Amino acid sequence: MQRVGGGRMLNQLEEGAATIELGVRFAETDAMGVVHHAAYVVWLEAGRVAWLDAAGTPYAGIAAAGHHFAVTGLQVSYRHSVRFGATVLIVTRLAQVRSRQVAFDYEVYEQDPHARGGRGALLATAASQHVCVDLEGRVATLPAEVLRLLADAQSNGADT
Amino acid sequence: MQRVGGGRMLNQLEEGAATIELGVRFAETDAMGVVHHAAYVVWLEAGRVAWLDAAGTPYAGIAAAGHHFAVTGLQVSYRHSVRFGATVLIVTRLAQVRSRQVAFDYEVYEQDPHARGGRGALLATAASQHVCVDLEGRVATLPAEVLRLLADAQSNGADT
Amino acid sequence: MQRVGGGRMLNQLEEGAATIELGVRFAETDAMGVVHHAAYVVWLEAGRVAWLDAAGTPYAGIAAAGHHFAVTGLQVSYRHSVRFGATVLIVTRLAQVRSRQVAFDYEVYEQDPHARGGRGALLATAASQHVCVDLEGRVATLPAEVLRLLADAQSNGADT
Amino acid sequence: MQRVGGGRMLNQLEEGAATIELGVRFAETDAMGVVHHAAYVVWLEAGRVAWLDAAGTPYAGIAAAGHHFAVTGLQVSYRHSVRFGATVLIVTRLAQVRSRQVAFDYEVYEQDPHARGGRGALLATAASQHVCVDLEGRVATLPAEVLRLLADAQSNGADT
Repeated sequence: MQRVGGGRMLNQLEEGAATIELGVRFAETDAMGVVHHAAYVVWLEAGRVAWLDAAGTPYAGIAAAGHHFAVTGLQVSYRHSVRFGATVLIVTRLAQVRSRQVAFDYEVYEQDPHARGGRGALLATAASQHVCVDLEGRVATLPAEVLRLLADAQSNGADT
Repeated sequence: MQRVGGGRMLNQLEEGAATIELGVRFAETDAMGVVHHAAYVVWLEAGRVAWLDAAGTPYAGIAAAGHHFAVTGLQVSYRHSVRFGATVLIVTRLAQVRSRQVAFDYEVYEQDPHARGGRGALLATAASQHVCVDLEGRVATLPAEVLRLLADAQSNGADT
Repeated sequence: MQRVGGGRMLNQLEEGAATIELGVRFAETDAMGVVHHAAYVVWLEAGRVAWLDAAGTPYAGIAAAGHHFAVTGLQVSYRHSVRFGATVLIVTRLAQVRSRQVAFDYEVYEQDPHARGGRGALLATAASQHVCVDLEGRVATLPAEVLRLLADAQSNGADT
Repeated sequence: MQRVGGGRMLNQLEEGAATIELGVRFAETDAMGVVHHAAYVVWLEAGRVAWLDAAGTPYAGIAAAGHHFAVTGLQVSYRHSVRFGATVLIVTRLAQVRSRQVAFDYEVYEQDPHARGGRGALLATAASQHVCVDLEGRVATLPAEVLRLLADAQSNGADT
């Protein structure tokens, strides 16, 4: 088992999706008694880092080679709040890949051992868009090998 | 001058907008050398807290009276990155107010003393939607007085 | 296996210590290219939450029963920096337990599969002190059952 | 007036101390209803960034010139909790400066307009130790000009 993105990866890509589980940190709660909405944004990042690992293109490697996926857009729909003590599942899929852009979709569930696939209440859905940049922050083309692996992982997901 | 939301409020509502300035914190940067995208989400919250203060309905008062504005939706469009050492301006407007819902729009600028109104590069635009909940997390109607002040502040902004 | 404190628990208490592993989150890095020092403070909290789980006194239960462990002191000694892509191990021990106070000690390692016990470089050592408070923030005596379980867990650790 | 470290600087160095005020952010609170202890660590950093600005050695400049102050030690003593809606004052002093090391002391107050100097309850005291490192993370000697300005600022503080 591999540790990725701050949690435990539950599978390699399954139907194109990577799932990680994260225990809610007390520091992630706020004075409403529930997890603060900004914490989900950090969880989503952990989700796509896990997806990239599972696709064979670890983000640490992409970064070490001088590229970053700068976030250009983020949309989150919050459906249910979640409290300290819970574990959440972040399900991430590659939504789009172009030579200079990638996009991901996400579902965030509260883990429930009694629910199918351990997926209890759907807490949030989200999407993010990214542009590949180099170390100077200029838009760059994704390395060919990374592009190929991403496209493969996406089409494998689409197949199933 | 009043301190709000982690920064300095530059004005009371001007054409319906509240503006705060926040110095970028080193902790808000990431290994790309720029501010992490999740930090903007915290800045937007500071922006709407400042707007509520300026509208005469401080969020600390709303919360003390047993209501919270739970975030139901968030959309951010990131245009330019920003580095440690910069100061940012968060411009917040009330986009909609209903008996149980509010929505805000935001612009995030890098401060530039030589630009008009101090507004340099537009770093991001954003929107958030909220539902009023009580202490048990149930959807609740906004207190009538709060509702009236919000509607007043919005229509004053629309007038100009 | 149980998910605790944002990571994976590697064991129940072993010689009085609970160990969790956490993948470094990109959001935890800063513009120096390494994990920001404040992120360790959140990791330590995850470590003691894991310790309490392993000792049979989950913090979510203590909190639900109306008690919190307010932090009164924190000391961290940082020895090596760590980068995105790494996994860290947080080793937590109960250092002291009194009727109204607890204290923990911590070691933070970079995970290294080739090192003994997976423990690579020692990144930091730390200690924290806590006072038990009730929901109004007043100092309170720990519930007798919690106190007994904590003392048991500590003496078991001391035995070995 | 200058914006520094995420808040408003109240003075240039006064008796060697820089003071900033920061409005508590809702995101900084936790499910205990008060500011999370890790948020203070970020505030302290904002405090020393303000001190460096006031001393004529802005941290952004030090960083741009290829040096960082890596944190080697941190000690915080928490005395009182503070809630959303409050403003805090961070008072920072240079405690020590050597060719490769600096150390700072801090006091965190809740702002109270009716108290002397606006300083209400003392929330926390803290200290941090730092080593100067270059971009590769190796221990480095502080630039002579920076060292001189730091020493000057410290001795001016000691004089008064």
